[in-house]
Amino acid sequence: MANVRSSTSALNAPEMLTILGGGLVGSLLGLYLARHGHIVELFERRPDIRKAGPVEGRSINLALSDRGWRALEGVGIAEAVREVAIPMHGRMMHDTHGGLTFQPYGQAGQSIYSVSRAGLNRRMLDLVEQEPGIRLYFNQQCRRVDLKRQELELLDTATQQSRVVPYQRLFGVDGAFSAVRSALQRTDRFNYSQEFLDYGYKELTIEAAPDGQWPIEKNALHIWPRGQYMMIALPNLDGSFNCTLFFPYEGPDSFATLQTPEQVQAFFERVFPDAVPLMPNLQTEFFENPTSSLVTIRCFPWAVQDQVLLLGDAAHAIVPFYGQGMNAGFEDCTILNELLHRHGHNWEKVFQEFEDSRKPNTDAMASLAVYNFQEMRDRVADPRFLLQKKIESKLSAQYPDKWLPLYSQVTFSSLPYAEALANGQAQERIMQRLMPHIQTEDDFQRPEVQQLVAAEMAQRP
Amino acid sequence: MANVRSSTSALNAPEMLTILGGGLVGSLLGLYLARHGHIVELFERRPDIRKAGPVEGRSINLALSDRGWRALEGVGIAEAVREVAIPMHGRMMHDTHGGLTFQPYGQAGQSIYSVSRAGLNRRMLDLVEQEPGIRLYFNQQCRRVDLKRQELELLDTATQQSRVVPYQRLFGVDGAFSAVRSALQRTDRFNYSQEFLDYGYKELTIEAAPDGQWPIEKNALHIWPRGQYMMIALPNLDGSFNCTLFFPYEGPDSFATLQTPEQVQAFFERVFPDAVPLMPNLQTEFFENPTSSLVTIRCFPWAVQDQVLLLGDAAHAIVPFYGQGMNAGFEDCTILNELLHRHGHNWEKVFQEFEDSRKPNTDAMASLAVYNFQEMRDRVADPRFLLQKKIESKLSAQYPDKWLPLYSQVTFSSLPYAEALANGQAQERIMQRLMPHIQTEDDFQRPEVQQLVAAEMAQRP
Repeated sequence: MANVRSSTSALNAPEMLTILGGGLVGSLLGLYLARHGHIVELFERRPDIRKAGPVEGRSINLALSDRGWRALEGVGIAEAVREVAIPMHGRMMHDTHGGLTFQPYGQAGQSIYSVSRAGLNRRMLDLVEQEPGIRLYFNQQCRRVDLKRQELELLDTATQQSRVVPYQRLFGVDGAFSAVRSALQRTDRFNYSQEFLDYGYKELTIEAAPDGQWPIEKNALHIWPRGQYMMIALPNLDGSFNCTLFFPYEGPDSFATLQTPEQVQAFFERVFPDAVPLMPNLQTEFFENPTSSLVTIRCFPWAVQDQVLLLGDAAHAIVPFYGQGMNAGFEDCTILNELLHRHGHNWEKVFQEFEDSRKPNTDAMASLAVYNFQEMRDRVADPRFLLQKKIESKLSAQYPDKWLPLYSQVTFSSLPYAEALANGQAQERIMQRLMPHIQTEDDFQRPEVQQLVAAEMAQRP
Repeated sequence: MANVRSSTSALNAPEMLTILGGGLVGSLLGLYLARHGHIVELFERRPDIRKAGPVEGRSINLALSDRGWRALEGVGIAEAVREVAIPMHGRMMHDTHGGLTFQPYGQAGQSIYSVSRAGLNRRMLDLVEQEPGIRLYFNQQCRRVDLKRQELELLDTATQQSRVVPYQRLFGVDGAFSAVRSALQRTDRFNYSQEFLDYGYKELTIEAAPDGQWPIEKNALHIWPRGQYMMIALPNLDGSFNCTLFFPYEGPDSFATLQTPEQVQAFFERVFPDAVPLMPNLQTEFFENPTSSLVTIRCFPWAVQDQVLLLGDAAHAIVPFYGQGMNAGFEDCTILNELLHRHGHNWEKVFQEFEDSRKPNTDAMASLAVYNFQEMRDRVADPRFLLQKKIESKLSAQYPDKWLPLYSQVTFSSLPYAEALANGQAQERIMQRLMPHIQTEDDFQRPEVQQLVAAEMAQRP
């Protein structure tokens, strides 16, 4: 990485910057801005997670992939995180009889990493606190953002005292239900959408084995795909796994029809038989843990002149089916950092280039995430679809320079998301031309099919 | 029309209903609900428009078409409105040299009608006040909708007194910036979007001639199409016309570049030369009248159990380029009325069937309105597009049972909007197959083209 204190920044006097939101992206952003020599005030709504007890109903584990790592490397904290991250080399699919199929995510050595949201947030807050240029405040609930007067009204939830804090430049990194974005939404010509899936999710636990080891393969993301719903599990350091059930709100198999502990037990034994013996607290967890909704949030503009900028989920919350929510937020910091190196203190230019260049990419990522959900839900049981996936994998092995699978473009590259989406669509069009000629996996080797493939590949850059 | 007091309703005891919003759709809804025997409380934010002075910055004239008339007939007020409505038989296009082209809207006798928003609202409030079952309150600003406690907090803007009003059943007809919808938006899984065009609009005036007559053709909707922008004018009863300039916010010709009276005058003289002499107050109006934005609002669900229902712009605000905003809101009342006849006091069923059946249609209308804007903006200068429009008109004349132009389906029928959109798309596909064979208007009569046309028509129902 280049030296983060660039000559461009050094020529400018430090400024007072305000960040609302001390989650993963807010903390990382604080580190980046401080390394540019600025003084940062960071306000977080929740108590200090390092002192607090259990976390609230958000996903407990996250999958960190290349874009996320790159952003962590930019402030020199990747190695520290790597120590507490568990590599997952591929998907382990569990069928209804407990049978297993392993699909590697990429080539040898390519993995995504299971990290604990709380653990990562704690580690980053430690770094934030050690950073001389950052002042960190907890229990700061934002009651009002006044864009005209450039001030925040913050309620200290510990003392119940309210105060008004002026800002020069405000970074809204306060998540999917952002208070900063709410203020922008009350201005004219602010485009905004929130779209919910008809599915919710619930966190459950697979316990560690008595010896503290992992009761199922440690280095995999486990999936129990069931057509209209699915469960996944990511490994924790203590031998347990965090499971997430993605499940319809309504319908024959849905949250609406699982109303008693007996119904839950019977349902899980029927559809996830190999998981049930590993989930001793299933019934309790199912009714005590919240059912959370799945939303895609799009908005524009993200900036108000040189005064306000939205980043992370506040600007572009997505559904979790591609494992890119946190990675996209971290990549926001990478992009903003590059623009600060390029334009120094010309904040208006930095903010405008950020929103103009980044918006098409986060829109593309939002579409990819919903598309992956539909694919998992509707197509995973279609034999033609599974055959197509196998053929694509053969194609990629035969033409590695011409055909990088879409998943790898998103997960193991820093290609802009919009380009990945466009490439993926072009690849899908090729597959639609090839598949009518292919009825079995072996057909791929037939000379006439290989000829068609060669002709298609010859036209690719 | 069937007797509006149906036997179904008569079997049920009257209920207390609450309407928030006394604009055009709210007033009409009040009349419909009262005719079903209910007691209606209607709260309007603004002062009584019949006593107040000039109206706020909303479009002053509206185009009433078949769906609107049908809804007015349902409560027996169409004839009274017809007396103050001016029929517009077609579009009068003004070119940059003042040359005129007239395009009829439909067949002989088919017109849309210019009505004054304020005049229509006044007339409807008179009827509401005369209706025994309705209590009407002005100056009632809704500060809060509490969906759990089922109560409204209303501030009387005349006395500055606040009060809490409980509701049993609440109809949110409070427009594009609905307070009822805001409350729904804070509930989980509420889908919502607001999308603005990069265009704004400004109301201007063409004055009546000195003799009180109309200085340009009275019975037409006038359009000055200019590719990236346009002006339209609708006739008033007093001989004047209300003009609306639809204009980009930014760019070479835009609100941003017209900053002085001299710039406005020069611009209008260059692009609307025949209108300028009729607009003596152009410079004053341009800077005194607000620049209003153009938004499409979509949301879902519209109902909360049997307790709350959104209608009109609160549920589905659209851009004005198809002249269907008010007509769609009025048609909401027609549909709700039919459901009340069918299901009586089974409000949950009424509300659910309303939202399920109506939502695809208002979504389709929203798309049609934006599409018409793009068509007017981008395609109206394309000779191939104009040729296609002429061929479509010949097609419709030759096959009147097989080909109703999309505009007529929307404007002169009560075909559900979604079906009109689907029909329009099917017709567009046919035109895309025919047009490669057609280079001039006369080509339509060539035997080979007529053969293609006959083959296409044979496949239509």
